[in-house]
Amino acid sequence: MQWYVVATLLTILTSSQGILTTLSQSNGGYKYDYATVPFLAEVFKLIVSGFLLWREIKTSTPPRMTTDWKSVRLYPIPSIIYLIHNNVQFATLTFVDTSTYQIMGNLKIVTTAILFRLFLKRKLSNLQWMAIVLLAVGTTTSQVKGCGEASCDSLFSSPIQGYMLGILSACLSALAGVYTEFLMKKNNDSLYWQNLQLYTFGAIFNMARLVLDDFRGRFEKGPWWQRLFNGYSITTFMVVLNLGSTGLLVSWLMKYADNIVKVYSTSMAMLLTMVLSTFLFNFTPTVQLFLGIIVCMMSLHMYFAPANMLVDLPLTAKAAPQTVIEVSVNRKSDS
Amino acid sequence: MQWYVVATLLTILTSSQGILTTLSQSNGGYKYDYATVPFLAEVFKLIVSGFLLWREIKTSTPPRMTTDWKSVRLYPIPSIIYLIHNNVQFATLTFVDTSTYQIMGNLKIVTTAILFRLFLKRKLSNLQWMAIVLLAVGTTTSQVKGCGEASCDSLFSSPIQGYMLGILSACLSALAGVYTEFLMKKNNDSLYWQNLQLYTFGAIFNMARLVLDDFRGRFEKGPWWQRLFNGYSITTFMVVLNLGSTGLLVSWLMKYADNIVKVYSTSMAMLLTMVLSTFLFNFTPTVQLFLGIIVCMMSLHMYFAPANMLVDLPLTAKAAPQTVIEVSVNRKSDS
Repeated sequence: MQWYVVATLLTILTSSQGILTTLSQSNGGYKYDYATVPFLAEVFKLIVSGFLLWREIKTSTPPRMTTDWKSVRLYPIPSIIYLIHNNVQFATLTFVDTSTYQIMGNLKIVTTAILFRLFLKRKLSNLQWMAIVLLAVGTTTSQVKGCGEASCDSLFSSPIQGYMLGILSACLSALAGVYTEFLMKKNNDSLYWQNLQLYTFGAIFNMARLVLDDFRGRFEKGPWWQRLFNGYSITTFMVVLNLGSTGLLVSWLMKYADNIVKVYSTSMAMLLTMVLSTFLFNFTPTVQLFLGIIVCMMSLHMYFAPANMLVDLPLTAKAAPQTVIEVSVNRKSDS
Repeated sequence: MQWYVVATLLTILTSSQGILTTLSQSNGGYKYDYATVPFLAEVFKLIVSGFLLWREIKTSTPPRMTTDWKSVRLYPIPSIIYLIHNNVQFATLTFVDTSTYQIMGNLKIVTTAILFRLFLKRKLSNLQWMAIVLLAVGTTTSQVKGCGEASCDSLFSSPIQGYMLGILSACLSALAGVYTEFLMKKNNDSLYWQNLQLYTFGAIFNMARLVLDDFRGRFEKGPWWQRLFNGYSITTFMVVLNLGSTGLLVSWLMKYADNIVKVYSTSMAMLLTMVLSTFLFNFTPTVQLFLGIIVCMMSLHMYFAPANMLVDLPLTAKAAPQTVIEVSVNRKSDS
């Protein structure tokens, strides 16, 4: 499969996730326990990966599977980073309002590229760095509150701790992504075997969260496994399946493409959600959304288009310099 | 002189123009007749160009001067286009509010590039086209009204005639620029001789405007030459000198650089004015201004940086492909 097909699919599913989650609410709140959704999504991913691995094992050329404890022990690390990240997120929101929080979230586009460069030693051209900054600027532009909207003066007037935590949050989110890419690419193990390890730990960490919630709530609603599907509608099950599927696609991208592709995919999903929301929920589109979309589209083209297509003048296009093609091949083989 | 020195100077002077004009007002209005300013600026440019031409004539190698009527008769055309443009502008403002009008003004960045391509047959790379679109998006972003500002709902709710006239206005403005560039570059005539013709017609057209105003006002304030400097302060004289100087710099750029350089110069000036205004007039800077500035800076770099600097990966930088350098030389010699 081509990476851009998977990336497009991820964009569509990530975008549906926001819309499905909104649709699964009733009277502006959740009738079900939202913490059960990521747990069930992990279980779904575990089942799918297990089935695909079993099919792979049955074939004449069995898949590579490293079962060494030295390798397995690396797989809970992404879950641990996400756990810390969630707590930092929670702390950030005690200092800043949700719109400042949302705008700061775009920082993770830039931090991902930086950690991608530092830890995975992947080189980007000047133009690609500019494209990444433009992607962050474009998504931020689309989120800027329009004229006449309520609660605006709060932006950039939060205590300094809020911004520090926002930056930390962006770094942790980037770190989790970059670490997962390192994990998936470090050897030729079967993707499904790697997924199996990743999601087993994911399911355990999510289960721990449910248990903790039970203890905090003093088991007033009964243990988590008894109320797992309480209040679930068909839409809620779709939210679970959708979240699980996006997870599987992200794993695939981490192994066969890279973090930058994922970042573009989810940024485009954010814009798609905003456009769809104007139709589905009758939101009025802002000029900012329109401008932000143009900037992001330019960024996408700048990052992924072959270099010679971008810099050649129409006249010299026929005598395309060979060395430029080489450069563009380098760039393509990276992703 | 290098074109980027002239372009930087133009940015600074264009930016001062806005600030000086604001400073020349008293109690939010003009004490002087604003129509006298462009007339006096034309006279100032005429004197400067006349003096420089006289100095050139005195040298051992006299300048080239085409005095053929076939050539001279082309010089009033820019003034005529501007005259039509001013009337279209006036008509546009009867349909749209000033903020929509200001935002539509950014269209002329794109129309200039299109006419530049069509009439002057100048080729731009894909990246340069993208840079131009980003420049227009960036300047528009910086002008989007912030949350909580008054009078917002009017944006994009004007009658269709307003938008059609706005597009026409952008085309006329671009046409005047592109035509002037054609005029300045069509032969090797001395810049000062070309200026002399351009500004003579400019002064005549501006004088005609003053005479027309007199007839319209039924000479109640006396003829224009008697009240030419009425209400002038030192700041007003500075406005005149500044406007005249920007005109001279634009002429220079039209002959030795091009319209795109001018467009970048004036767009940067607009941003500089907004930044300076936050200090001078205590405006609160918006997030949009900040985002717009980043987009415009990226656009500037994309348009003018040598192609190999943009697309080479850090590793391949040392073995810079020769053909790419050729491409970048092509681009440079264009401007």
